[in-house]
Amino acid sequence: MPKGHLTVLGLGAMGSAIAERLRGSGYAVTVWNRTAAKTGPHVAAGSKAAATVAEAVGAGDVVLVVLLDHESVREHLDPVAAELKGKVVVNLTTTTPNQARATAAWAAEHGIAYLDGAIMAVPDMIGSPGARLLYSGDENAYAIARPALETLGAAEFAGANAGVASLKDMALLAAMDLMLQGYLQAIAMMRTVGASAADTAEETEAWLAAMLPYGKEIAAVVDGGTYDTGGQSVDFDRRGLASLITASREQGVSARLLETHQRLLEELAAAGHGASDWPRIIDRLTIPR
Amino acid sequence: MPKGHLTVLGLGAMGSAIAERLRGSGYAVTVWNRTAAKTGPHVAAGSKAAATVAEAVGAGDVVLVVLLDHESVREHLDPVAAELKGKVVVNLTTTTPNQARATAAWAAEHGIAYLDGAIMAVPDMIGSPGARLLYSGDENAYAIARPALETLGAAEFAGANAGVASLKDMALLAAMDLMLQGYLQAIAMMRTVGASAADTAEETEAWLAAMLPYGKEIAAVVDGGTYDTGGQSVDFDRRGLASLITASREQGVSARLLETHQRLLEELAAAGHGASDWPRIIDRLTIPR
Repeated sequence: MPKGHLTVLGLGAMGSAIAERLRGSGYAVTVWNRTAAKTGPHVAAGSKAAATVAEAVGAGDVVLVVLLDHESVREHLDPVAAELKGKVVVNLTTTTPNQARATAAWAAEHGIAYLDGAIMAVPDMIGSPGARLLYSGDENAYAIARPALETLGAAEFAGANAGVASLKDMALLAAMDLMLQGYLQAIAMMRTVGASAADTAEETEAWLAAMLPYGKEIAAVVDGGTYDTGGQSVDFDRRGLASLITASREQGVSARLLETHQRLLEELAAAGHGASDWPRIIDRLTIPR
Repeated sequence: MPKGHLTVLGLGAMGSAIAERLRGSGYAVTVWNRTAAKTGPHVAAGSKAAATVAEAVGAGDVVLVVLLDHESVREHLDPVAAELKGKVVVNLTTTTPNQARATAAWAAEHGIAYLDGAIMAVPDMIGSPGARLLYSGDENAYAIARPALETLGAAEFAGANAGVASLKDMALLAAMDLMLQGYLQAIAMMRTVGASAADTAEETEAWLAAMLPYGKEIAAVVDGGTYDTGGQSVDFDRRGLASLITASREQGVSARLLETHQRLLEELAAAGHGASDWPRIIDRLTIPR
């Protein structure tokens, strides 16, 4: 039994991997790309190439959008709003939560079933269980597109707020970003005594793996909301952090990456919260500077 | 066969745990504490209490020092330098690498075999294999003290430079510190859409565990030193990070914790390194501001 007709707009590395995977999974795929030359390998492999976005959109029941950024999404989709009416649009372009919500509002105005996706994977991972894709927006659109989406990797519906998939993606990437900065700080400190980055990374990886569960304890304190559980206090954390900063500087390594944490603690102490549990610094993150 | 005589100076939570563990392992332990009352439970359990530091030092072949800070170490040890001559001093007080090296130099002047230690554990963990203790300094002192030290947890000799144990401790703690800030950033972002900290921490933990091995790739780039491997570039990383920062701010959450990384990338781009591999930011950490 033939599977449905899908359209993929955008054949960058990620769009190409997605089109290839969908085709390999038995879908009839129509592709479009701003630079038509990129459609060649897809046509050779059995997909159809559309000359225009309108033609591409007309060929699919579900339209997957994998463009450069939010602006290119709107540049290409706005003119074909009428053609998209009644179809499912899955926007896998990397956007911010507000951009996702704006596109969702535009889609709702035009009777388009809109799903916003965030891809937590590199193109090579598409089609493997290691690829994780988050979706949010129109739950009915998710139900329709789901069989196709599940061929791309582990699929998860994150909620009706179209911005949530992007937000979760960004939140997890922010956590990873800080973790990777941590690797660099440790490597920078240890290479002052001749340790290779490889050796330090190996030690750091083992140490961080052992410390990962501490996130749950922080979460319990934050969810509790009283910051008086008697765990490590703001003042205690300040002293410990001051030692780290001093040690780094003594070795001629900047402690810049650690200084924001220090400032957050100082702000809490100045506000009279020195005895609070240190995760109270999260409250400082929601106070605009 | 009786084991040796050990002295423990300082009976805070950590010093007490160490004295208790050594006693339980069959050593004759003499304890001293500035506030004598804290020696009570130890005496009740079979240790001897010394009235002065000099008396305590005279009773042990190996002297373990677990005081408040570097200043208290020097305050109490300097007057008994002559009594310590020929003995092994294991300083487990939390100090910076420079402080450790200064105490090692002082010890060398007075013919004291000095070992500086860093405890990567909380007091409750002392005596369990999960406790990790790093030592650096006089290797012969390590050989002498090792049987006793191995009763405290996994022991590791990190090198003859007395500051290295402390430095490694601080480097690993710095990496952990940034990882924990990452948890808080993710929790702060996700709670704007109603996610509990517990849910976000659980997701973040799984994600970070999957991303931990990326540290090895960063290390390979840093050890290579050319920053031209064709991996993610400074310019690419800047765009990605800009999205994270925008997403965070859109939700009303400060991106302060991410801004140092952003500034490091901007500095590199301004210096003409936009096409370099992004871990080149480590070089900015060794340039004083």
